[in-house]
Amino acid sequence: MKSLSHKVKIINDPIYGFITIPNKLIYDLIEHPYFQRLRRITQMGMSNLVYPGANHTRFHHAVGCMHLMQKAIQVLQNKGVQISEEEKNAVCIAILLHDIGHGPYSHALEHSIVDGISHEVISLQFMKELNVEFDGALTLAIEIFEGNYKRTFLNQLISSQLDIDRMDYLKRDSFYTGVAEGNISSERLIDMLNVVDDQLVVEEKGIYSVEKFIVGRRLMYWQAYLHKTGVVAEKMLVNLLARAKELAKDGVHLPCSKALHYFLYKDIDENFDVETLKTFSRLDDYDILSAIKDWISHEDRVLSKLSEMIINRKLLKVKLSNHPITNEHISFVKKSMQEQGWSEEDLSYFLINDQIKNQAYNGSANKIYLYYKTGEIVDLVEASDQLNIQALTKPVIKYFLCYPKEVKLA
Amino acid sequence: MKSLSHKVKIINDPIYGFITIPNKLIYDLIEHPYFQRLRRITQMGMSNLVYPGANHTRFHHAVGCMHLMQKAIQVLQNKGVQISEEEKNAVCIAILLHDIGHGPYSHALEHSIVDGISHEVISLQFMKELNVEFDGALTLAIEIFEGNYKRTFLNQLISSQLDIDRMDYLKRDSFYTGVAEGNISSERLIDMLNVVDDQLVVEEKGIYSVEKFIVGRRLMYWQAYLHKTGVVAEKMLVNLLARAKELAKDGVHLPCSKALHYFLYKDIDENFDVETLKTFSRLDDYDILSAIKDWISHEDRVLSKLSEMIINRKLLKVKLSNHPITNEHISFVKKSMQEQGWSEEDLSYFLINDQIKNQAYNGSANKIYLYYKTGEIVDLVEASDQLNIQALTKPVIKYFLCYPKEVKLA
Amino acid sequence: MKSLSHKVKIINDPIYGFITIPNKLIYDLIEHPYFQRLRRITQMGMSNLVYPGANHTRFHHAVGCMHLMQKAIQVLQNKGVQISEEEKNAVCIAILLHDIGHGPYSHALEHSIVDGISHEVISLQFMKELNVEFDGALTLAIEIFEGNYKRTFLNQLISSQLDIDRMDYLKRDSFYTGVAEGNISSERLIDMLNVVDDQLVVEEKGIYSVEKFIVGRRLMYWQAYLHKTGVVAEKMLVNLLARAKELAKDGVHLPCSKALHYFLYKDIDENFDVETLKTFSRLDDYDILSAIKDWISHEDRVLSKLSEMIINRKLLKVKLSNHPITNEHISFVKKSMQEQGWSEEDLSYFLINDQIKNQAYNGSANKIYLYYKTGEIVDLVEASDQLNIQALTKPVIKYFLCYPKEVKLA
Amino acid sequence: MKSLSHKVKIINDPIYGFITIPNKLIYDLIEHPYFQRLRRITQMGMSNLVYPGANHTRFHHAVGCMHLMQKAIQVLQNKGVQISEEEKNAVCIAILLHDIGHGPYSHALEHSIVDGISHEVISLQFMKELNVEFDGALTLAIEIFEGNYKRTFLNQLISSQLDIDRMDYLKRDSFYTGVAEGNISSERLIDMLNVVDDQLVVEEKGIYSVEKFIVGRRLMYWQAYLHKTGVVAEKMLVNLLARAKELAKDGVHLPCSKALHYFLYKDIDENFDVETLKTFSRLDDYDILSAIKDWISHEDRVLSKLSEMIINRKLLKVKLSNHPITNEHISFVKKSMQEQGWSEEDLSYFLINDQIKNQAYNGSANKIYLYYKTGEIVDLVEASDQLNIQALTKPVIKYFLCYPKEVKLA
Repeated sequence: MKSLSHKVKIINDPIYGFITIPNKLIYDLIEHPYFQRLRRITQMGMSNLVYPGANHTRFHHAVGCMHLMQKAIQVLQNKGVQISEEEKNAVCIAILLHDIGHGPYSHALEHSIVDGISHEVISLQFMKELNVEFDGALTLAIEIFEGNYKRTFLNQLISSQLDIDRMDYLKRDSFYTGVAEGNISSERLIDMLNVVDDQLVVEEKGIYSVEKFIVGRRLMYWQAYLHKTGVVAEKMLVNLLARAKELAKDGVHLPCSKALHYFLYKDIDENFDVETLKTFSRLDDYDILSAIKDWISHEDRVLSKLSEMIINRKLLKVKLSNHPITNEHISFVKKSMQEQGWSEEDLSYFLINDQIKNQAYNGSANKIYLYYKTGEIVDLVEASDQLNIQALTKPVIKYFLCYPKEVKLA
Repeated sequence: MKSLSHKVKIINDPIYGFITIPNKLIYDLIEHPYFQRLRRITQMGMSNLVYPGANHTRFHHAVGCMHLMQKAIQVLQNKGVQISEEEKNAVCIAILLHDIGHGPYSHALEHSIVDGISHEVISLQFMKELNVEFDGALTLAIEIFEGNYKRTFLNQLISSQLDIDRMDYLKRDSFYTGVAEGNISSERLIDMLNVVDDQLVVEEKGIYSVEKFIVGRRLMYWQAYLHKTGVVAEKMLVNLLARAKELAKDGVHLPCSKALHYFLYKDIDENFDVETLKTFSRLDDYDILSAIKDWISHEDRVLSKLSEMIINRKLLKVKLSNHPITNEHISFVKKSMQEQGWSEEDLSYFLINDQIKNQAYNGSANKIYLYYKTGEIVDLVEASDQLNIQALTKPVIKYFLCYPKEVKLA
Repeated sequence: MKSLSHKVKIINDPIYGFITIPNKLIYDLIEHPYFQRLRRITQMGMSNLVYPGANHTRFHHAVGCMHLMQKAIQVLQNKGVQISEEEKNAVCIAILLHDIGHGPYSHALEHSIVDGISHEVISLQFMKELNVEFDGALTLAIEIFEGNYKRTFLNQLISSQLDIDRMDYLKRDSFYTGVAEGNISSERLIDMLNVVDDQLVVEEKGIYSVEKFIVGRRLMYWQAYLHKTGVVAEKMLVNLLARAKELAKDGVHLPCSKALHYFLYKDIDENFDVETLKTFSRLDDYDILSAIKDWISHEDRVLSKLSEMIINRKLLKVKLSNHPITNEHISFVKKSMQEQGWSEEDLSYFLINDQIKNQAYNGSANKIYLYYKTGEIVDLVEASDQLNIQALTKPVIKYFLCYPKEVKLA
Repeated sequence: MKSLSHKVKIINDPIYGFITIPNKLIYDLIEHPYFQRLRRITQMGMSNLVYPGANHTRFHHAVGCMHLMQKAIQVLQNKGVQISEEEKNAVCIAILLHDIGHGPYSHALEHSIVDGISHEVISLQFMKELNVEFDGALTLAIEIFEGNYKRTFLNQLISSQLDIDRMDYLKRDSFYTGVAEGNISSERLIDMLNVVDDQLVVEEKGIYSVEKFIVGRRLMYWQAYLHKTGVVAEKMLVNLLARAKELAKDGVHLPCSKALHYFLYKDIDENFDVETLKTFSRLDDYDILSAIKDWISHEDRVLSKLSEMIINRKLLKVKLSNHPITNEHISFVKKSMQEQGWSEEDLSYFLINDQIKNQAYNGSANKIYLYYKTGEIVDLVEASDQLNIQALTKPVIKYFLCYPKEVKLA
């Protein structure tokens, strides 16, 4: 019998009930300050301005993923897929740590704080660092995470159109936002998984669970991830941090935490040195938000105004459209703003013209396969009755223009 | 303040919590034996052979509809739609009684017991009968039910693509079957309803709730209403009753209840006389099932065998196909059966060739309209981003062939 | 890997999601007509007259128990309790079949149909019969069920104050009635189970789950099992069948199914012979209710009136009291009834004086033990902070008197 | 019809579905920076170190309370209780703002940041300030909140043993922690409320809902609010801020936000002047946690160590006991610590001896009354069958001692 001598064994989760931490290594990883940092990074960033329940953290998501991964492995083993104890452990660690390099707030901030370095790259650096600390115990996890391990389906469980990551975050985000339309049946989906020729597949009778999953994902995108208020708040945050970085470059003093100071005043390139990684491991939502609160009284008008707008939820007005905003209209808004006293510099921060894209199912890169009782493996889109899935492969783009509420268009 | 002096005021519902019976008239209608009969008619017929939780009754569905209707009226009133107390009461009664003429088991039985008379017609006859008993108190309810009342949206609440009937039964059937894919957000949908130019509409921001509703309906059809095992059980029940009627016509004695005896041995035409209506009001699932149990030991082999198969859940084998079953294949099965001792007469009961059709949204007859903030009213299908809804308007047909499990094809 | 070659592998359950049928033997037992009969016996008898959602069957409960038992065994195995594959299978079978001898409607009917034979005794007879049919495959299951197997905790899982039976029925009955107060956390409880010295125990940290379980049980008793309307309906049903038996003894013709006829017209003693067992296996709720429906027009006034009252839910009036009904009051009601034309014989059917008793936790016979981290085993009642549990060991008795609504007391 | 011309009308809540903001005044109050601040104050403080889902905010709780209050008022009005539109609005505002003066983290911090001033007092000051801003529109709300309004039951809805505050927070905290044992049925309870002689009462049939409410509250206390890990984290936070205040008094520099700086370096007395109130309105969890993060590298060893322990969740070890910790034992631990190099000053921060108390129902101060059909009003505790409620009035005290994990006792 496997010993459960490690200290905390169980984590309460409103979604899955009890989550069991399966062994001491995983327990120690969770206890590590690098991972504990995820307690201070919200999963949905500024979305709590729209959905006040959406304060759940990347910590909880990561632990939830580990739980679902354990279930998935057990389901596959029950169906006769051979998975060793070592592989099981590695794939659980890989999913647990898949977001460990995530910075504060959303992906969008990756470009404000560390230019052009994706969180996956930073996650990998953290994993490698931890692998040193844990004497190589993460080697197989890293191999699977990078897609270098021979058994492809293990990587597909971590990253594909139907991966454990999505299964947890869609369900979790639906739960905490209260957007019932996105409530997918993760556990039913997992019960339908199988592996054929090293390829992750869904059993035939799971076709309706997959359909609900894809439609649910689409609905979560429109209603939550791409909700116009959340999107504009995020854009404003990006602009605010861009402004802060510019001011920092000009040597202006910006009260903020040491960790944030480091990233505002220094240029970071892709290969994080140890100091940068260590400092990054101390950076979370609290650094950002508490700095913004203090910046409300900063002398720089742009910085101060954007800060005040974000903290007190006085966001820019948004116009959504199914068609690109015409140059005429943009010029018209610009002219109105200028006439009402907004400077050229202001425009680059307070007038936002951008787009959002939603592709419920991207069947080109990476398909979902159905496994028929006959033994056939069929691309989901080609399964006869799925006209609507086919329709859902078409990306939908919406365009938006934001400007201050007080601007009068005339 | 409206007095609540009637006796039972509240009904527990696992789905909505408490359901309040709003007044004495509705209370008396619910207490009436005609309505109490619905306690003994399951909502989903033979589906409990597939989903053992699906034993909920038409009584519960009808009461649930009344509850949702009250909510809908309140939402509309809050939005400024003028609805009088009398209209509110009438539309609640109409939805409460919309299924009161439903016979035992599913619609399919309408053709076995009372040839070619739909349950809507019988419901109307019951309503008229009750209207006499209740001194004309149901007149407006009947007018609305028949679609003769000037305010169209009241009838649309009872019968349209987005009516209260569907909102309750989809949610309820999903709840009791455990088919999570069909769990729609009835209360959210209702919150989004409005009336424009006497037309029931859904507010723009409800578009995703509507989408989930339509997709949920589609999934419920494939997984529950058209589940092959449920469909074959129903077909067998139809065949069984057809056999019983034939035997009755030949004067064979069939042990059964008085009410069932009446319908087996008599030809019923569309205009139920009072005796027929009264007898029908005593006919429910219990008459059918207990007769079938006794018929297991009947001397007629077809009757006996079908009865035994249904009671002990030894159903015919089903082959589903996306294409019509070819004549060749049918002949082949027939030949096999004949060679294995099945008579020509047997074939007409134990070999079933039929089809099932699922059209998630029929946008031709009766549309769902979205109401934009701009004041525009748009057909759901034409709302830009709804490619998949368009796809869902295409009916999907599946074909099936059933025959006894013991038949060997060779 | 264990093969899953049997045909139906999964059952949908709105409560637990998917229930997996673990092997062919259990599949065949479920498919057996003896077990299929449980589809036609409701778990809560007449309670659907109070809670219209409560139409779930003993079939579903039995299958749910089997599911929870599988979970419990897995939890115990993970904690190092050695349980062989054979033991696991046997205890699952034992819980699956624990109610297979249940007659129609509730326990109360045991005395009307088969005098003084409990359903546990009949269940055992069915198991023995099935053991013959299945060539001894149920021997160990029977041993555990009878409490003859050396490992006591296996029997405790089937029958004790915290058994799997209760865990399923409380949760299930709460779910289907909508009585939220009784919703217990079966899965959390199971996660807290352990075995020490062959005794089933609950780990220390599960104390609050146990408390909720006991309080939930208490609340379910008052609100559902002992709800006055349900209780009076059941009493009326008992009286109705007693009347039928008397009439049968007098040779009066009672239209009913063959199976019911057998039990009405024959005296049954404790040792069911094969014919009796076979006939019993064809007796279910449908026999009872359809007979009652036909008896509405029977010439015996008592039989006819009781039948009509039950079918149309015109029940006796109930007076509940915390004290025994005084002889004075009973005499007074009797006198009123006699003056209003009720005969002496009527009184024995339409005037009911009885009591209901609720003991949330019976700590005398059979205790629940807590297992402290220190290794100590403590009786739940003695665990310090549980004053209220102690209070809950006191049985509470309520007294009631029922008589026809039309009787005027004066 | 009431106009809904204000901009945002609906807030999503995973618990209640949609929450409607009933009018422009309430909308404007919610939008006010004073209220928006509550978005940055978690409801359960450090409890997310135990229950990672418990990140919900006082903002959400306050809005949820307003929603339940609307329901409660509607229920009472339906039962004939006369409540004017003005009273309804006032009581909704009062509950919405009841926590507006809450400081960061839990009540415990009230003593660290503003000595001896309860959050209710500060809430009142905020309300008065807002009343000026809103031209007296809050006068009645304040009167009700202070208990000065003639109609007592309105204040009881805000503050009593069965108030809307508790109904929301128990349900919400149970939902977000996942502690199913505390899931109460707020909506059922509200449906059972009534008013008799200006006293809030619960109708007789609600007795089981009240019982579940009290037991649920008890279980939430032990499992969530008084969970030993949460309690020790809070104690450590209190000690940490006490240390910071002392250092501030000594003129030591403490990097932190302006708002926190104000409260650390200044002595605040009970009557907040305008400047203090304004500064307080900028103080939230983010100020505290981001300061603590920076203090990890502070030169003061006590400050730095406590900060590091909290951020990285390396908490003190806790020993719980049902009896007071003996002086002998405390001395023994002290001596061990001293021998292992902890200074006298350390002991006052790292050795904690305290107690927690749980009284599920305090029937002395403020009772819950049941309203019998007979017209009688009965104290819950005296309602016959409630032995266990009586037991629950006894407060239960547990004692604990905390010290660093690395200390070896010997």
